[in-house]
Amino acid sequence: MGARIHLNTAGAGLPAPAVLPVMTAYLAEEAEAGPYEAEAAHAKQLEHDVYGSLARLVGTDPAEIALFASATDAWCRVVCNLRLPTGSRIWCTPYEYAGNLIALQHLAARHGCTLEVVPTDPAGDLDLAWMATHLDDRVSLVSLVHMPSGAGIVLPVAEVGALLAGSRAVYVVDACQTTGQLPIDVRAIGCHLLTAAGRKFLRGPRGSGFAFVARSLWDHVEPQFHDLHVAEVSSLHDHRLTTGRATRFETSERNNAVVLGLLAAADHAASRPGGASAEVFSALLDAVASTPGARLLAPGGTRAGIVSFAHADVPSERITAALAEDGVTGWVALGSHTPLSLAGFARFVRLSVHHYTEVADVEVAAGALRRAVS
Amino acid sequence: MGARIHLNTAGAGLPAPAVLPVMTAYLAEEAEAGPYEAEAAHAKQLEHDVYGSLARLVGTDPAEIALFASATDAWCRVVCNLRLPTGSRIWCTPYEYAGNLIALQHLAARHGCTLEVVPTDPAGDLDLAWMATHLDDRVSLVSLVHMPSGAGIVLPVAEVGALLAGSRAVYVVDACQTTGQLPIDVRAIGCHLLTAAGRKFLRGPRGSGFAFVARSLWDHVEPQFHDLHVAEVSSLHDHRLTTGRATRFETSERNNAVVLGLLAAADHAASRPGGASAEVFSALLDAVASTPGARLLAPGGTRAGIVSFAHADVPSERITAALAEDGVTGWVALGSHTPLSLAGFARFVRLSVHHYTEVADVEVAAGALRRAVS
Repeated sequence: MGARIHLNTAGAGLPAPAVLPVMTAYLAEEAEAGPYEAEAAHAKQLEHDVYGSLARLVGTDPAEIALFASATDAWCRVVCNLRLPTGSRIWCTPYEYAGNLIALQHLAARHGCTLEVVPTDPAGDLDLAWMATHLDDRVSLVSLVHMPSGAGIVLPVAEVGALLAGSRAVYVVDACQTTGQLPIDVRAIGCHLLTAAGRKFLRGPRGSGFAFVARSLWDHVEPQFHDLHVAEVSSLHDHRLTTGRATRFETSERNNAVVLGLLAAADHAASRPGGASAEVFSALLDAVASTPGARLLAPGGTRAGIVSFAHADVPSERITAALAEDGVTGWVALGSHTPLSLAGFARFVRLSVHHYTEVADVEVAAGALRRAVS
Repeated sequence: MGARIHLNTAGAGLPAPAVLPVMTAYLAEEAEAGPYEAEAAHAKQLEHDVYGSLARLVGTDPAEIALFASATDAWCRVVCNLRLPTGSRIWCTPYEYAGNLIALQHLAARHGCTLEVVPTDPAGDLDLAWMATHLDDRVSLVSLVHMPSGAGIVLPVAEVGALLAGSRAVYVVDACQTTGQLPIDVRAIGCHLLTAAGRKFLRGPRGSGFAFVARSLWDHVEPQFHDLHVAEVSSLHDHRLTTGRATRFETSERNNAVVLGLLAAADHAASRPGGASAEVFSALLDAVASTPGARLLAPGGTRAGIVSFAHADVPSERITAALAEDGVTGWVALGSHTPLSLAGFARFVRLSVHHYTEVADVEVAAGALRRAVS
């Protein structure tokens, strides 16, 4: 029996080759030497190398990288504590991730902001002309997901960055689904914050994430806490930062096996950049489009990695069960996770491909799909 | 060569027997089946059993348990977001952990509170009479560490709880150094929040922590964020909680191998409750006290687990190096981590014992100590 065909990288990818052995070896070392003692022996990797690798991956320097337990954790530690002018405007898109949106709702309530959704054209692409026309000094925050988890549309993050250049808006990009799949260059995007998950297309461990936090943003975040790896108490009433880095947003304690797994994944991504080939992605798109009764959820003109669809008659769970019988792992995604554009689809099938997916894998999935709906 | 003698459980303990195999097996399963798929196969352990085991460990029911990446993460997610009356009084003790204190400083600044330190008697014990005399309706928050990381004093958390009963104060206890070492019963303590680390005396994985969050506290915490495992978006401007549990304070993404390791550690702690025997602890205390020139940092009348000392002439690093030569792992602790009582000792030696420490281990350490200072 061959290995399973994993078409759920958009949920969590299969770990890159070195990730599992690196983590397993480190955990054994902790059990032998003691966890703090193993950490001291790997200080260069944990305190230096991982920041360098992730910085190279997104086009910045290590001082603007911070590690978190997830992309959501990264997003909240910064966005949830932004200082925004009272009564200002927050922009998001119809593709906003529900978790991000909940944080924006709290933020808007706290600062009396208006939460507005950038409209799209009939094809589903962002209306950049609307943005250019409506942008003013009251827009204090613009949030884009680079690619929503429910559909493979690639949002024009660099074009939006160019449009916002010179404005007062803080520009935040959730690159959860694109880091490890598409090239990321935070300077070209022009964002102030970019958050990323380790577990998806980057093929790192679960419980890992990181962020690029631009220097220019650091003073716009209300500190709730500084941990002891970046601060020291100077009196009962005061403390001082001891870092000049974005690590100021981190908490210090983490699972070091996870951090070393993330480093291994980042190094692998540098040696094997990019996601599925255009050929593999097209084959998947064709397979779904030619499945009788399948309704593609494929907005926008630029797409990659993720193909989602609903079926009028066959429940999503039955489709993924049929795929599983043929050794193919798909996923039943929830419209509620992308509530501003996909709420009409309570449950749908999401298939996602990566550089480890072959055309032959897609052909197996295509056969299973046809059987599932026949 | 025998195994090393690990006297740094107060930093991070050696993993309980099942922890490493459980984690290693789960990581391999993730790599084989896919991380979301392995999660689905272990849903009962991850969503049910771990809450049950941790709840039993601290004497509550599972609905009041939430999982975090560390005790600090737990503390901040709740304490940093407390709603406190403007101008109210926050009490901590001279044993407060520096990280907690930084969070209290931010909290005090935000709400215009006064931060006050409960005094101690000459022996170093909390002045409970002072607390009884000075307690009034303006005291809105009382923070105690059950045991500071720099010294083995056990604070009278239940006596303080009794004293505060009926007052308006939110009572929070940091049980980082005691969970897995001393019996914990949150009802007997009478606290509203108790935070715990997985990696220390509980012998779980790094990057794990949890909290008891009393139901009565839930509405006193300003929500900054609700993750999608506990909430759903109902409109652009609103969302609703879908849980009746303390999980409302969690973020959903985590490393499941770490969670399963924490479960294994909690189950082991239930089968092997308690820390070092009184005999082992006394032997360690005697060994240090009889080391020429060693100055014990041992405040208070009730002590356990941790023995700290400084030496007038021999640097702490030379002492731990001498211990290491004899296969004994100690730790150089920083006074800055307990800044309100130990700031006068920049660096000192901390030795900590647990149920896996034998009297013979302490004798080895005692010999190394004598050589180090001779």
